[in-house]
Amino acid sequence: MAFFIVLPYIFAIFSMSSLPRLEVCFSPALLHLYDTKDTIVVIIDVFRATSTITTALHNGANCVIPVSSVNECIAIGASNENYITAGERDGKIASGLTYGNSPLEFPKEFITNKTLVLTTTNGTRLLHMIQQPYSIIIGSFLNLEAVCEYLLQQNRNVLLACASWKDRVNLEDSLFAGAVVSSIKSSFTMNCDSARLSQHLYQTSNGNYLEFLKDSAHYHRLLGYGLYRDLEYCTTSNLHPIVPILSHEKIIIQP
Amino acid sequence: MAFFIVLPYIFAIFSMSSLPRLEVCFSPALLHLYDTKDTIVVIIDVFRATSTITTALHNGANCVIPVSSVNECIAIGASNENYITAGERDGKIASGLTYGNSPLEFPKEFITNKTLVLTTTNGTRLLHMIQQPYSIIIGSFLNLEAVCEYLLQQNRNVLLACASWKDRVNLEDSLFAGAVVSSIKSSFTMNCDSARLSQHLYQTSNGNYLEFLKDSAHYHRLLGYGLYRDLEYCTTSNLHPIVPILSHEKIIIQP
Repeated sequence: MAFFIVLPYIFAIFSMSSLPRLEVCFSPALLHLYDTKDTIVVIIDVFRATSTITTALHNGANCVIPVSSVNECIAIGASNENYITAGERDGKIASGLTYGNSPLEFPKEFITNKTLVLTTTNGTRLLHMIQQPYSIIIGSFLNLEAVCEYLLQQNRNVLLACASWKDRVNLEDSLFAGAVVSSIKSSFTMNCDSARLSQHLYQTSNGNYLEFLKDSAHYHRLLGYGLYRDLEYCTTSNLHPIVPILSHEKIIIQP
Repeated sequence: MAFFIVLPYIFAIFSMSSLPRLEVCFSPALLHLYDTKDTIVVIIDVFRATSTITTALHNGANCVIPVSSVNECIAIGASNENYITAGERDGKIASGLTYGNSPLEFPKEFITNKTLVLTTTNGTRLLHMIQQPYSIIIGSFLNLEAVCEYLLQQNRNVLLACASWKDRVNLEDSLFAGAVVSSIKSSFTMNCDSARLSQHLYQTSNGNYLEFLKDSAHYHRLLGYGLYRDLEYCTTSNLHPIVPILSHEKIIIQP
């Protein structure tokens, strides 16, 4: 009889331990602390790389090629007339490239059937640092729900990796991580204080991302460049319900 | 006339820029991103090094000598019969040392007029990493108000440096940083998202530290060692209203 009383608890413990792991990494400088092997890594660079990638793909780009340096961007861009080079350094279009890092630069009528070769300070660098992942996908508020659905379907370990700002923890990437954690955590094992911290942050925001981020380093910086529309756009939820995924060094829409 | 309208704004800008800087570093692995020169660095290791140091000093210890390794701790401890060696590794008293890392091990009747030679995994390591600070002080909930008062009096740049857990961001140190930020930020210039994040965390806690930390990695770990009383003690505010400060490689009460 005692066995039948204990049985549900044993079952619960087994169910819990069989759940995949959910963690958050706040900065590329902390990435070495996490095991990314066979893990789905979500790259997060809300302002603005991952928002731009998501927008370009959903607006019809063939793919996005993420590269680390401006020179590499120029070289790959020159290899095909259908390739568009884009990237910024210190808030300006990098010398030798044609476009910047604003999602608003890549509407349907322009980007359809083109390939975007993109270099950014934080996001693309992080992407090249991940070791032996199961897959690397791209997360932003623009595809929040699609990312969460994908992660729930896969039933694998997940690392939400914030691109941050020159390795400094930032509010917007942490907030997005918190939005994902809040949405999917019941299907995962979570013993990660960064994940808890980001979840608290998300709850504090009440889902008013733009308003919440008005007191953040990146908001002030981008506003200084006159980019309010970018800030507004990048904090809009679920405008582009796709999951960008890295495949053979290109980012495509997850089929 | 226009000059008189603009004057208050100019004055406000000058006042702001003359305020010292307030920043938070979440992990020793991020310390290189911060300028610690001529800065007051507050070392935070709530569970439990900085709580233990504060307790031992207020309870009458002559000083605390923080050391990085167990061997160094043994060697210094052997040099004077009035020296007490303490430190843990993986939750147990480290082999060769006499006491652990619990503040409850150092009551007045035991520690008065003794010197505590202490090695811990995270806190003492961080302390030895700081470059050219103005001063290094020790922060914990046990001396929260005293730390805040000291920082307000000094009118200097401040870095709140979380010891974290093996370089992983933790909830308790971030929460304490948030408590300090909330208390003193109006007297500082603050453009640091980690500081903002910790402040949001503090506000979410409503000052119920123990309750708030019940869902944190370190709480679970220490509870697993049967250390509930330590958790309770280390989350008590202002039991020891002193400011421990590093002076010639020893930690003493700030005069």
